[in-house]
Amino acid sequence: MFRRIYLDHSATTAVAPEVLEAMMPYLTNKFGNASSIHNFGQETRSAVDKARHQIAALINARPSEVIFTSGGTEANNLAIRGLIESRFPTSHGRQDGTAAPPHIITSAIEHPAVKNVCEGLEKSGVNVNYLPVYGDGVVRLADLEAAITDETVLISIMAANNEIGTIQPIEGIGRIVKARRESGQKIYFHTDAVQAAGKIPVNVAEIGCDLLSLSAHKMYAPKGVGCLYVRRGTRLSPQSLGGRQERGIRGGTEPVALIAAFGKAGEMAATDLDKNAVHLRTLRDMFENAVLETIPDTTVNGDPTHRLPSISNISFAGIEGEALLINLDMQGIAVSTGSACSSGSLEPSPVIRALGHGDAKARGAIRFSFGMGNTSEEIGAVLDALAKAVANLRQLLTGKIRADRDPPGRR
Amino acid sequence: MFRRIYLDHSATTAVAPEVLEAMMPYLTNKFGNASSIHNFGQETRSAVDKARHQIAALINARPSEVIFTSGGTEANNLAIRGLIESRFPTSHGRQDGTAAPPHIITSAIEHPAVKNVCEGLEKSGVNVNYLPVYGDGVVRLADLEAAITDETVLISIMAANNEIGTIQPIEGIGRIVKARRESGQKIYFHTDAVQAAGKIPVNVAEIGCDLLSLSAHKMYAPKGVGCLYVRRGTRLSPQSLGGRQERGIRGGTEPVALIAAFGKAGEMAATDLDKNAVHLRTLRDMFENAVLETIPDTTVNGDPTHRLPSISNISFAGIEGEALLINLDMQGIAVSTGSACSSGSLEPSPVIRALGHGDAKARGAIRFSFGMGNTSEEIGAVLDALAKAVANLRQLLTGKIRADRDPPGRR
Repeated sequence: MFRRIYLDHSATTAVAPEVLEAMMPYLTNKFGNASSIHNFGQETRSAVDKARHQIAALINARPSEVIFTSGGTEANNLAIRGLIESRFPTSHGRQDGTAAPPHIITSAIEHPAVKNVCEGLEKSGVNVNYLPVYGDGVVRLADLEAAITDETVLISIMAANNEIGTIQPIEGIGRIVKARRESGQKIYFHTDAVQAAGKIPVNVAEIGCDLLSLSAHKMYAPKGVGCLYVRRGTRLSPQSLGGRQERGIRGGTEPVALIAAFGKAGEMAATDLDKNAVHLRTLRDMFENAVLETIPDTTVNGDPTHRLPSISNISFAGIEGEALLINLDMQGIAVSTGSACSSGSLEPSPVIRALGHGDAKARGAIRFSFGMGNTSEEIGAVLDALAKAVANLRQLLTGKIRADRDPPGRR
Repeated sequence: MFRRIYLDHSATTAVAPEVLEAMMPYLTNKFGNASSIHNFGQETRSAVDKARHQIAALINARPSEVIFTSGGTEANNLAIRGLIESRFPTSHGRQDGTAAPPHIITSAIEHPAVKNVCEGLEKSGVNVNYLPVYGDGVVRLADLEAAITDETVLISIMAANNEIGTIQPIEGIGRIVKARRESGQKIYFHTDAVQAAGKIPVNVAEIGCDLLSLSAHKMYAPKGVGCLYVRRGTRLSPQSLGGRQERGIRGGTEPVALIAAFGKAGEMAATDLDKNAVHLRTLRDMFENAVLETIPDTTVNGDPTHRLPSISNISFAGIEGEALLINLDMQGIAVSTGSACSSGSLEPSPVIRALGHGDAKARGAIRFSFGMGNTSEEIGAVLDALAKAVANLRQLLTGKIRADRDPPGRR
């Protein structure tokens, strides 16, 4: 097979060799159920404990504040539904409820795992504000403050966006929430840090959040595991009821091999954070600058500075992103038009549309996301392929426009 | 380390070498997100599709009826909460609901992942009947028929119990549900087949169920994946909202390696079902008969014939199960006192208590669960260790009773 180049690390990453090594014992001879009392259980229990410490260290939390989940989506669901349900019990059928409905504030560019949970809660009577992000893709703290009411119980704003990489002012949000809480309001702050972790520092004490979601497979560990940070004292209604695992908040046999892998990946992400960020930013900027200089009618989406070092989202005027993606794929180059979780959708990216750029720009947007394994040589190869692909697609388009103007029957 | 013997296969199993081999490509070079459009995504999408066919074949379902989850617990939660919420939307805060509350029928010996979900729903107004199981651990169809009301929307009865292995009359339940449905009632049947699959035939068409839960790690695949069979046309409210994965019923990036492993394990379970059952039954019966013959005051819990071939649950009169478990563990032998999901609990097993035997018998119960790797030589070693451990514990107890009768101060 010809050489392939992967520039879709925001969708998922390959398992790092060290991470695979850390999980292998738990796929072979150490297979006990971590809830079993006997020796087979004890050795897997200690693996889960170790990983909990590693993940806690990555985000500056206490180990007991880390609740392992099946991934970022489950973590986001648990955070939002779990918090709302713990304070506003649900009911089926008859009820004579009198409490005012709770209120949530989120942003217009959240991942579907936050957006769809909020929209689902709206159907059951919860009020939700979706804050705008303007042309730079950044939420304004003044908008947030203006949106808070006495009924606001939860603010869920992502740490960094998955499509454009924009970093949100989460420390500022944390301060606003803290001030409200000090004045007596029971209000909580959740942030989806799935894309941010491993790329920029994620420190729950500095952010001042109560809930924070992580996903292992975005940081060189396998798919199928993640966690929710739950600040001590924050009550949540379990979303998966069963055994007493994860302090009763999340039932189900602990996926020991996955958790051990996640722990190792977290440890590596913490150790190598600065080094990795430099590598990613160097490649990304080299790529982005070359695209802007050599390919006409290209624009970068989102704030150019307050941005993850790993993502470059570029709109190619006049081109359908999907067509460009497929063209590059045929040359062995993997990129995406948006969240993999939204793929198959024919709608233009709601994130790019939220920047106010209109459908055409959203349709022409491509996300290039860089990873630890990428090299400058690969970037060079992608730039060559990209320039040709864009030129070809634009030529086809021009041809099509000419043909439309001058149809064969009229010649 | 000294040789260890594992007789706790109902808690979890080791990953089979063939299963590990099937998953390794997806932990190494085939790492794409199965929702990505490009080649990296296509190769993992095809792995997910293949596994879906393999699992469908195991249970005689259509591939599109298999919804992958993070395990049996999530499958049970999705089945029960998902069905109830799809028909009786939840509400937070103000509501002027007028519908009669829905009604669920389950059994007194369900796994915590069913029991706790039902108990949770009771708090939100759902009515639940917990059918008795009598001394043999089997639900009576007459009890079920008597419990059904016009409000009954769901029956959730496990295929086989996790502690005593008793097989429930699920085909009979399927026929009752079918008859009710033909007379116009909107009623559904869920069965937790986590323990049954791979041990006895599990055929959704013959059972006549609408929903059926499976877990990979009970059948020689890794922890962290399972599935829910959802009969075509059965609406469920998603419990994990996010991307469009799993037909929108279960959001979250597909854990490709785990799913590929689960598929392979399902294929092997289907192929080797009869052979495996003979192996398990031979070892189990050899063990159980020897215990009953050689260790006094021992009784088998649950129906001796309508039972999985893999489980023997034995009460040792006068002994605390936990003490026996720890004694055996120190000799490298792994057994359990009940569900691993309930371990840490100081309560006697609710399953054994539901048999009407009283607390003493429940406290003295040990589950021995056999697996493919066990040998008759191991069984011999366990029988020797067990006879000694029981004799020692009983001697300690007799000594303690004597000492209590004749305390030192009175000598």
